[in-house]
Amino acid sequence: MSQTLLHGYFRSSAAFRVRIALNLKKLSYDQAFRHLRKGEQRAPDFLKLAPQGLVPALEIDGNTLTQSLAIIEYLEETRPEPALLPKDAAGRARARALAYALAMEIHPINNLRVLQDLEKRFGADAIAVKGWFQHWVKETFGAIETSLASSKGTGVFCHGDTPGIADICLVPQVVNNTRFDIDMAPYPTIGRIYKACLELPAFADAMPTKQPDAE
Amino acid sequence: MSQTLLHGYFRSSAAFRVRIALNLKKLSYDQAFRHLRKGEQRAPDFLKLAPQGLVPALEIDGNTLTQSLAIIEYLEETRPEPALLPKDAAGRARARALAYALAMEIHPINNLRVLQDLEKRFGADAIAVKGWFQHWVKETFGAIETSLASSKGTGVFCHGDTPGIADICLVPQVVNNTRFDIDMAPYPTIGRIYKACLELPAFADAMPTKQPDAE
Repeated sequence: MSQTLLHGYFRSSAAFRVRIALNLKKLSYDQAFRHLRKGEQRAPDFLKLAPQGLVPALEIDGNTLTQSLAIIEYLEETRPEPALLPKDAAGRARARALAYALAMEIHPINNLRVLQDLEKRFGADAIAVKGWFQHWVKETFGAIETSLASSKGTGVFCHGDTPGIADICLVPQVVNNTRFDIDMAPYPTIGRIYKACLELPAFADAMPTKQPDAE
Repeated sequence: MSQTLLHGYFRSSAAFRVRIALNLKKLSYDQAFRHLRKGEQRAPDFLKLAPQGLVPALEIDGNTLTQSLAIIEYLEETRPEPALLPKDAAGRARARALAYALAMEIHPINNLRVLQDLEKRFGADAIAVKGWFQHWVKETFGAIETSLASSKGTGVFCHGDTPGIADICLVPQVVNNTRFDIDMAPYPTIGRIYKACLELPAFADAMPTKQPDAE
């Protein structure tokens, strides 16, 4: 079998998601590091693998896959156990909607390249950048908290009592929030699920601080 | 069978995606309109259905689903034909990665609420907003063009010769681009696929200008 190799960066939320998924599936993998602040994701050898110049990229089964959620769906389809998505279509839609609220409504607006662009384009200082970051987290976290707290689909984790795709997106966002002083008090359900996730080695071992390239 | 009802807005790219998917699957549906510029997505009755206050939301099979791509995956799982995703896992990963590049790397940064926030927070004028919009389109369209033009997975459409999830995300973005004067000349493959899509009624009938709430 060919080697499974994750191209990532310790602080990338999207790479963090893939690390958690690989760990939950108990797949062994090697890591290659692309230092985003040094622009290593723009190196020609990497652009050949991943034309978007974004981490993560996963070399697996002879293919190079990009986009964290596409990678997670691939892992689910090719290695179904343990499942990262519910078995029923309505449950799957709920879990994916929670995952996408995090992965589409918060993360793309708040990632490093956008924050850097705000500085460059609008002269945003650290306080303005923090205000921007906090705004988009609050917009979506409030709705996710309401949704999690009011749905009987919620269990120990975002959907039922086993960790899955929504938790995989939630934990990296909560970790990211700590760098921008987000008050988590208004989100007790999110906080409870976050804590439950971190008790699992699959999540704890995937933390940015645990990666070989952590600073 | 219960009524299928799409809560949308003619100009919402995400609602546009769901309209295309419903049309490709030949599902009949009614529409309810939430005027985003008037803030109708924040009305209490809608927030009860969709706590995030975002369109689209789809009432179907007795459930209310949110997040356009979660809705599309649900339609695919419950109404498999005609398929909107390839049959093989690697092909599915490729199609999803293209879809997510559009849905995660461009659209969330460029949607109405973010552009309005740039005006409010940084005093961005129309020219600055256009510069922002164009920047994020170009960042990703360049990579998608490279990827589509160089892959043998590309056919008449983004993946093979039948329309699918990547095309469903591509067309609304190209339509959106026209409002911000994006020069499409550097993207001939994208342009060719866009044209092929619009020859199909499923895409043409879903166009914003064809919706009852179009202005």
